Amino acid sequence: MDSDSRLQAIRWERPQLTILNQLLLPHTSEYVVIRNSADGHHAITSMQTRGAPAIAIVAALSLAAELSSTSFASGQEAREHIHRQLEYLKTSRPTAVNLFDAVAKLKQVVDSCATEDVCNAYVAATEKMLVDDVLDNKRIGKYGSEFIGKRSGGQKVNLLTHCNTGALATAGHGTALGIIRTMWKDELLDHVYCTETRPYNQGARLTAYELMVEKIPSTLVCDSAVSALMRQLLLKSPTCGIGAVVVGADRVAANGDTANKIGTYQLAIAAKHHGCDFIVAAPFTSVDLQVADGRDIVIEERSPKEITAASGFTSNS
Amino acid sequence: MDSDSRLQAIRWERPQLTILNQLLLPHTSEYVVIRNSADGHHAITSMQTRGAPAIAIVAALSLAAELSSTSFASGQEAREHIHRQLEYLKTSRPTAVNLFDAVAKLKQVVDSCATEDVCNAYVAATEKMLVDDVLDNKRIGKYGSEFIGKRSGGQKVNLLTHCNTGALATAGHGTALGIIRTMWKDELLDHVYCTETRPYNQGARLTAYELMVEKIPSTLVCDSAVSALMRQLLLKSPTCGIGAVVVGADRVAANGDTANKIGTYQLAIAAKHHGCDFIVAAPFTSVDLQVADGRDIVIEERSPKEITAASGFTSNS
Repeated sequence: MDSDSRLQAIRWERPQLTILNQLLLPHTSEYVVIRNSADGHHAITSMQTRGAPAIAIVAALSLAAELSSTSFASGQEAREHIHRQLEYLKTSRPTAVNLFDAVAKLKQVVDSCATEDVCNAYVAATEKMLVDDVLDNKRIGKYGSEFIGKRSGGQKVNLLTHCNTGALATAGHGTALGIIRTMWKDELLDHVYCTETRPYNQGARLTAYELMVEKIPSTLVCDSAVSALMRQLLLKSPTCGIGAVVVGADRVAANGDTANKIGTYQLAIAAKHHGCDFIVAAPFTSVDLQVADGRDIVIEERSPKEITAASGFTSNS
Repeated sequence: MDSDSRLQAIRWERPQLTILNQLLLPHTSEYVVIRNSADGHHAITSMQTRGAPAIAIVAALSLAAELSSTSFASGQEAREHIHRQLEYLKTSRPTAVNLFDAVAKLKQVVDSCATEDVCNAYVAATEKMLVDDVLDNKRIGKYGSEFIGKRSGGQKVNLLTHCNTGALATAGHGTALGIIRTMWKDELLDHVYCTETRPYNQGARLTAYELMVEKIPSTLVCDSAVSALMRQLLLKSPTCGIGAVVVGADRVAANGDTANKIGTYQLAIAAKHHGCDFIVAAPFTSVDLQVADGRDIVIEERSPKEITAASGFTSNS
């Protein structure tokens, strides 16, 4: 789907779905076959796949794979089955707005399907989602690259990013990492800094891996080192510190307030203090007009174990 | 030496020196006997002991232990031996200003010793350093507690600290953690937040451990979560967010610029943004009047392995 990037985390060859098992990255690149919605549900809850757009696509495609090996007595029976399974898939990640959005759209597709061929209509709609997500990301990349390029007067810039928003988090190309991919292709990128992204280390485990696969010059930094880095680069050359901080979004409220991985707010303060641009890269599906401002976005609180135990590292003790 | 704190990382019972092996914390509390300056040198380079004041004390006392089992033909021979061994101990941590300061002072003691009893003069001077460091820290604790207590109008406050500046980093009580200990004793402390302090996790491994040993109510947070925490506490109660951020110092320049663990600068920016007090707690021995401002302080760059491998954690992968 995403011919520009070397990394393909979601592979769909009708009717076969395979996904890259992100739990084993960066040590092992292993693809897992997803046969049905139970497999899809498990892939999401176990975090074999993560990233809001990727979760929506994998959930939708897991049911597409299931439908290919299921026969129904009638269009209505297929429709009911699809509704039931979509509701089940929604329970895999209760905070994922993109998943809820995809489920609502897919339900509408099967409900409005006039023919008996409900399954085909469903599969075609999920395939379109896969294609559209990559196209959206390429557009985000293009807009972002043009915007940052204009701000730098066409000079190459350094970018900094947080968490993982790349081919591993989306159907391909990525959102914030999509801007980085596009700027690299446009020869507007000098160097990328990616943060570890404690506690779950998505930056250290996933973004650093993606950047290495793409051979984009990059350095992994501790979350706490960003301000010192910004200052050091500014001292070296006042016109060419960090050109922009680019991040993704879990959810954007109606007023523009953005919820994203812990640490994003601290990066925004550091960027403001050093006069760096701060850019949130997200598709329109991440905007939740039901939520007036950021205070109404419910923040997912995960297990304290993520801070008391480490994953994705080799032991050094 | 430090009767107020439960934790004693440096134990000196003339002529026996034992230190807590900090490499095994928080999993195991094991004391190591330091017999001579070679043992002291090894304890510092291997990071069994760390923290600028503790390094100086352990280096000085390791030679004191050695002298008890060494005989010299003359005062002059003892003097020369002490000079040579102090020079050797200086190589254990080339950036530790407190160690250099202690070495200079101890050389002066043996040089100005009029009698033949040079060894006794040396040992007495090191013992005084041990006592004085704890007294200095208690004074820092008292000043800090009074200052913060005045700012809060006598109300209990929440404090946040970075890295480890406690009984494990000093001869006892601690500098920034000394303020926390004193405020707890003064019943002016509500809750302490300590940062992980990536990449070497001194906060997660050592400060969280010290706070638990002392039974001070505390929470370990990711370095990147501090700004979100400050904002959340302020939203809950505008008058009682984080009362102050208290940190130690590796070195303070003549103009007050302070070099400290990576992440300190980012915390200072976060504190400024949220209107929190930011306090550097350090003895006068951390001030280097030879250095005009912060740009002239050479920053130690450690191995990239500290960010690609983890220590002090149980594995979660």
